[in-house]
Amino acid sequence: MGFNTLRFSLIAVSVVSCLAFLRVPTASSVVSRNRMSRVEMSTVAAPNFAPAQTSTREKVVVLGTGWASVKFAQNIDTRKYDVTVISPRNFFLFTPFLPSTVVGTVEPRSIVEPIRSLLEYDSRPFTRKIKDRFTGLNKENFKRSKFLEAAAMEIDYKNNKVVCADISDFVGGSDASFEVEYDKLVVAVGASSNTFGTPGVKENAMFLKEIEDSLKLRNVLADLFETAHMEKDLDKKKDMLSICVVGGGPTGVESAVEMDDYIRDDLASLYPEEIALTKINLIQSAGDILNTYDQKVSEYSTKLMKDSTVNVITKTVVTEVKPDAITVKSRESGESYQIKTPLVLWSTGVTASPLVKAVMDSVPEQTKRNALETDRTMKVKGLDNVYSVGDCSTVVEEQLMMDSAEKLYKKADLNNDGSLDFEEIRTLLEASVAEFPQVEVLLEDMARDGEEYVTKFSESGVCELNEQEFAKFIKSADSSLRGLPPTAQVAGQQGTYLAGFLNGETKKPFKYFHKGSMAYVGQGKAAAQVSILASMLPYSVQEVLPLFGNDIVLTGDLAEVVWKLLYVDMLISPRNKVQVLFDWFKCEVFGRDTSRF
Amino acid sequence: MGFNTLRFSLIAVSVVSCLAFLRVPTASSVVSRNRMSRVEMSTVAAPNFAPAQTSTREKVVVLGTGWASVKFAQNIDTRKYDVTVISPRNFFLFTPFLPSTVVGTVEPRSIVEPIRSLLEYDSRPFTRKIKDRFTGLNKENFKRSKFLEAAAMEIDYKNNKVVCADISDFVGGSDASFEVEYDKLVVAVGASSNTFGTPGVKENAMFLKEIEDSLKLRNVLADLFETAHMEKDLDKKKDMLSICVVGGGPTGVESAVEMDDYIRDDLASLYPEEIALTKINLIQSAGDILNTYDQKVSEYSTKLMKDSTVNVITKTVVTEVKPDAITVKSRESGESYQIKTPLVLWSTGVTASPLVKAVMDSVPEQTKRNALETDRTMKVKGLDNVYSVGDCSTVVEEQLMMDSAEKLYKKADLNNDGSLDFEEIRTLLEASVAEFPQVEVLLEDMARDGEEYVTKFSESGVCELNEQEFAKFIKSADSSLRGLPPTAQVAGQQGTYLAGFLNGETKKPFKYFHKGSMAYVGQGKAAAQVSILASMLPYSVQEVLPLFGNDIVLTGDLAEVVWKLLYVDMLISPRNKVQVLFDWFKCEVFGRDTSRF
Repeated sequence: MGFNTLRFSLIAVSVVSCLAFLRVPTASSVVSRNRMSRVEMSTVAAPNFAPAQTSTREKVVVLGTGWASVKFAQNIDTRKYDVTVISPRNFFLFTPFLPSTVVGTVEPRSIVEPIRSLLEYDSRPFTRKIKDRFTGLNKENFKRSKFLEAAAMEIDYKNNKVVCADISDFVGGSDASFEVEYDKLVVAVGASSNTFGTPGVKENAMFLKEIEDSLKLRNVLADLFETAHMEKDLDKKKDMLSICVVGGGPTGVESAVEMDDYIRDDLASLYPEEIALTKINLIQSAGDILNTYDQKVSEYSTKLMKDSTVNVITKTVVTEVKPDAITVKSRESGESYQIKTPLVLWSTGVTASPLVKAVMDSVPEQTKRNALETDRTMKVKGLDNVYSVGDCSTVVEEQLMMDSAEKLYKKADLNNDGSLDFEEIRTLLEASVAEFPQVEVLLEDMARDGEEYVTKFSESGVCELNEQEFAKFIKSADSSLRGLPPTAQVAGQQGTYLAGFLNGETKKPFKYFHKGSMAYVGQGKAAAQVSILASMLPYSVQEVLPLFGNDIVLTGDLAEVVWKLLYVDMLISPRNKVQVLFDWFKCEVFGRDTSRF
Repeated sequence: MGFNTLRFSLIAVSVVSCLAFLRVPTASSVVSRNRMSRVEMSTVAAPNFAPAQTSTREKVVVLGTGWASVKFAQNIDTRKYDVTVISPRNFFLFTPFLPSTVVGTVEPRSIVEPIRSLLEYDSRPFTRKIKDRFTGLNKENFKRSKFLEAAAMEIDYKNNKVVCADISDFVGGSDASFEVEYDKLVVAVGASSNTFGTPGVKENAMFLKEIEDSLKLRNVLADLFETAHMEKDLDKKKDMLSICVVGGGPTGVESAVEMDDYIRDDLASLYPEEIALTKINLIQSAGDILNTYDQKVSEYSTKLMKDSTVNVITKTVVTEVKPDAITVKSRESGESYQIKTPLVLWSTGVTASPLVKAVMDSVPEQTKRNALETDRTMKVKGLDNVYSVGDCSTVVEEQLMMDSAEKLYKKADLNNDGSLDFEEIRTLLEASVAEFPQVEVLLEDMARDGEEYVTKFSESGVCELNEQEFAKFIKSADSSLRGLPPTAQVAGQQGTYLAGFLNGETKKPFKYFHKGSMAYVGQGKAAAQVSILASMLPYSVQEVLPLFGNDIVLTGDLAEVVWKLLYVDMLISPRNKVQVLFDWFKCEVFGRDTSRF
């Protein structure tokens, strides 16, 4: 209870200080929100239907309203570029809290912000406003970017055009399709859920990528409990309350533990007969959940889930999804079995969307299957004037472990004996997995084949690698599919970088700066792995100061406070910050709403 | 600005005092929300699948989770009755704020409360808890009511059974249909929107009765503006931004003015080119909007709308609704014309739902077409053990003006000359319209035919009625369709009354007590017509104290504060109160969210 109270006060205090902090924008927004009279409106807002002036600014078209596009649009110099953002979604979604919205810990409206508001001068990030001051950009000479609520259907890169269509319910007549010309195109449309070709996933599983997915999941969860409550057959009731989450990454884990919180905090008192029968199966193909995190994080969260309704099933893959059951296969025993379930949440990774696939298929320089290959300045390989950032792209020349091979070798050779043994390699790889996700494949291979796997790369036939052999070893990792993980952090940095590059502020290629990883692991606890200090220092200094050389790993109650504070800080608009804080307060005091709609 | 600031502080203060007020329940709810461990859950919540004990309590089945049902369930003595509530909607909806949720002034989650929470002892109203103390009912001997999330498909009154079906997406197998037996049945399923057989309404118009309607409307509104923004043809753009609201009652007016607030406060800055073209047509068949209210209210709101995007069209009926236009007909000139519109909100009144229609058709004692006829104890005519409350019922013997004919006559005879002239009659009817909605028909007829209409009832051929003639005159009003208006106030009072009647606390027939009417009329102003003092005094005293004899009518800023305070007070759960206050605060400071989902 003590800590609950502490956390509670902390939230309350944050709300108050946040409000105080907002005083100035508040006052100005109240003033600017004075109601217009009918006369004022017709004079102020007279629409201009004269033929568009030939702008001397280059036309930049941005596809998407996710992390990469928003950060791009908020950093681009609109005196130089005439920016048009196009997306079927007219808002930005703060994806890290998406799992929280499934059960109502945070409400959907609290983590969305209209894209039109974000395109205004006032919304530009603090650091950008400082840069703007130096380049002379201010509220007066700032040009507003345009937004069109439409989906890009085809990129006609030969004619520098994008074919768009209004795909919403109301399209207003037959001419829902139109073309937009560009001088420069920024593709930031994100990625689709990857089903790995597993039969039945598309038809029977649910996903969690958009706010609509979250609304649907919340509805289905409530529906399961209401239907189970009316079921008298014990076995059938149990089957109805068996939920499957496929994928042990952050989204899968956070969804599972949020559901567990919801079940125990809120549903337990309302559906007492159903709760004892409820089980959430978290199915992970690797040997650990959260396996891109520090080992301590995986162990901590696995231990925590032992005292919950989450049943962790590792080293197991899903081979088929049916409407009322899934078939899984153990990777150890090779055994297959069925789990009855009415709700499968699939969150195992991403792949290219149809728009991106079409480009990749028609451009011979594009050799990957999952994302658009770009160079270090985000320019799409094989195309002129087309850039790509975020989940839909992969920087192929960047972030190769090969580039850092020499440094990594020195870092790994802990006993300075001029060669790396099995343990030294594993320690290095585990420490690098957040920065170089491709090593995950190596770690899995090493776990499976043991020393044998490493020995294959050694000419001496002993399980030890010299510098040359080590380079070969990590090269095999670089050939794995993706360069950087499909995270908000990567996308945001790429968007900001590309804007700076196009503004002419930098000529240097993009370099990813891994600040750390965080995950909520349920029951009011989180895991935060903050590598910001490590990343800031050169490798040589890291060795001298081992304290800064490693990630700082926090688990438990304190980590949850860090998790909350850092994410609230990351929320783009003050409105979102205040709303999320209020949601947490509301959830703590009144519990979550179980109304189904 | 001064008043804005005042209102703002008022809201802030209310939030704080509300929080302070909630301190005690807060603490207890935090304690009770301690997380359960897996072991605790399996022991505490062992489901009981032994055959149900033969309860000595009478089985009461309640259909619906609206005002009438909730008030009934919160007042019934569960020691005497084994109560089961059945509804496809597992929450209570605070309908007065439904128009506010269309534009996000108030969020949908803020005005719903899970029915299961409302069925707990702690949720019982304050006045009921006092009565409970006298009858010896307390938290220990209180039995929890059951809830089943299903729709009643058929009332098999011959066998005392209700046939139910789970009509949600997840039904868990083929046996979605089941039967529930009752000793006493309370039908409180509400009513459907009345289309008056107008062609195209069902297919092309939208309604506003449930939270899903509100979500859909909000989505469509945002879609209209996004699509219009991409339209270059000025005429087409204008047509897209022409919204029609049919019905000048409180729901229609509040929806129209909320949309107007939204357009001017929030959309004006985001869609500057579209705003000047936006128009909301409010179409009313009678000569005035809000015509069941005091004349001052109608005049005030009509005047206020002159300075808004709402275009009031009175004495006009809609004869057809097409996907992109409506046809209207002036009741004065008889002329028909078309209004292009992509969005028609239909809110003109209610009629019986299919379930209720089926009962009415099979019971010969039921002669009305729009609602179940009940006696003064809410018992459905022609059926045993079946009661009906709320919008689906009409008390035929009650609230007849005839009962009060003598008193009314005396009240109306202002100059004490023993007869009523045209003006005296009109003044009386206008003052009685809230209590006796049936007089609306008379008022319309009088407005159309003038003195001629009254003269028809006079034997002398002069436009004056003596007491006997007056009785005949008002009898014609009693024969109009409904006894009491389909409002939350009526439904709630009926639910509370019926619980008291079945508890054995009263033998008296139901008497409606009209506390007053309120409506939000836009631009931060409201109209409140509070008749609580008048209703509390006998007619003779009202004449002596004319101040108390008439309704107190407030319009403007102060009325909005009264409107807010009274409705927040009416909200059933503390959670809802705090959330609505926060929503108002959020709306005032940050504006409404225009994200479309």
